Amino acid sequence: MLITSLENNKIKEIRKLTSKKYRDRQNLFLIEGEHLVLEAIKRGYIKEILIEQNVDFPMDVYKTYVTYEILQKITNMNSAPKMIGICQKIEEKPIGNRLLLIDSLQDPGNLGTIIRSAVAFNVDTIVLGNNTVDLYNEKVLRATQGLIFHINIIKRDLKEFIEDIQKKGYLVYGTKVTHGLPVEQMDVNNKYALIVGNEGVGVSKELLDMCDDYIYIPMNVNCESLNVGVASSIILYELNKKFLN
Amino acid sequence: MLITSLENNKIKEIRKLTSKKYRDRQNLFLIEGEHLVLEAIKRGYIKEILIEQNVDFPMDVYKTYVTYEILQKITNMNSAPKMIGICQKIEEKPIGNRLLLIDSLQDPGNLGTIIRSAVAFNVDTIVLGNNTVDLYNEKVLRATQGLIFHINIIKRDLKEFIEDIQKKGYLVYGTKVTHGLPVEQMDVNNKYALIVGNEGVGVSKELLDMCDDYIYIPMNVNCESLNVGVASSIILYELNKKFLN
Repeated sequence: MLITSLENNKIKEIRKLTSKKYRDRQNLFLIEGEHLVLEAIKRGYIKEILIEQNVDFPMDVYKTYVTYEILQKITNMNSAPKMIGICQKIEEKPIGNRLLLIDSLQDPGNLGTIIRSAVAFNVDTIVLGNNTVDLYNEKVLRATQGLIFHINIIKRDLKEFIEDIQKKGYLVYGTKVTHGLPVEQMDVNNKYALIVGNEGVGVSKELLDMCDDYIYIPMNVNCESLNVGVASSIILYELNKKFLN
Repeated sequence: MLITSLENNKIKEIRKLTSKKYRDRQNLFLIEGEHLVLEAIKRGYIKEILIEQNVDFPMDVYKTYVTYEILQKITNMNSAPKMIGICQKIEEKPIGNRLLLIDSLQDPGNLGTIIRSAVAFNVDTIVLGNNTVDLYNEKVLRATQGLIFHINIIKRDLKEFIEDIQKKGYLVYGTKVTHGLPVEQMDVNNKYALIVGNEGVGVSKELLDMCDDYIYIPMNVNCESLNVGVASSIILYELNKKFLN
């Protein structure tokens, strides 16, 4: 099938998926570009793709050919990708032993970067708090570089979630800029959860008060704090070492 | 002085500093928001500020009061900052012993994040290659969180620079995704330079071929690479430890 009209109903419906409301209602989301589409196909989440006419893409997936203008109308990028995939939202799986809790993170690039690092450093499950940027925001997806399909990600009220996992023997670590134990000295338990927080204010006081211990990254006094994606990644990198050694 | 007209000549001149060409020609740059302005004042780089009328800012700096609309016309942010500073470009200082070389980095947020981490982990000098995003781009400055004023940053042809420092006894380390020594096993020399590269292709082959050794970060096989800001920061964090211990 080839669609050339920007007013085509199917295109209008797909374009609605750029808004969180429609993604939630339809349980679908969009991914842009060949790399992400290939990852989604491999992991079985793709429903269909829109692909620019004349682009060769010999994969077994339902394709609708469209014009560059249509792809441009759907994307937020300056130049449209060659293809856009429509995906089923990723189902939740049971949590593992090594959890990353994300409290009120706002920047989509930061969330995507943290997801990428969480896969790199063997986190089992990412738990998104209610006030965190939408996982299916296109900038989050782009920053994950497709790794969203390689890790369990669930959404929870973090206060209730922490109460629940503490009863089950998880130790919960908060991140603070200057208090607690230097990260390389942490002796992590087999079952743990690390909480990282908002770009401006860090982890909320309510959640910090629930933590079993606190972690910080030693740094030069001229630097008040690191980018939250960087800080989270350094801590995950260090914690991962304990399980490699 | 109060300026209310968007057509005012002074405002037009200042607005030109949002382009690299004018920043280079005038040796000036703009910073947005109170936090960055305060850092620039502390470090002696501020020339004057534009400040929204009725905003109280009891600092000893030359002020021109303007309307919100004027600030909005200069900024790239969705909502204008309360003040914008006009700064002298930062002069170069002699290089130290711990250098970070940046080859063809394109994303301003990544450069700003790396500068912030370089201050945190005691890099002496950052050396920007010719194809790297402009240091005085407003998104770079915002991502540095003011730490641009706390580190020596110079601009060089990296090939010539590496030849020069190798003659002076510096060891030069390249970053690769999977080759070389795991970063925690690096036994760094007192005088070293680390090279990090472009978001898509990493460090250019020409520069990698000049390196004395290579560093990588061990990670899960599902993750092909980390965000370059994250990867750079983890390596700087590890290298810094060698000098703390």
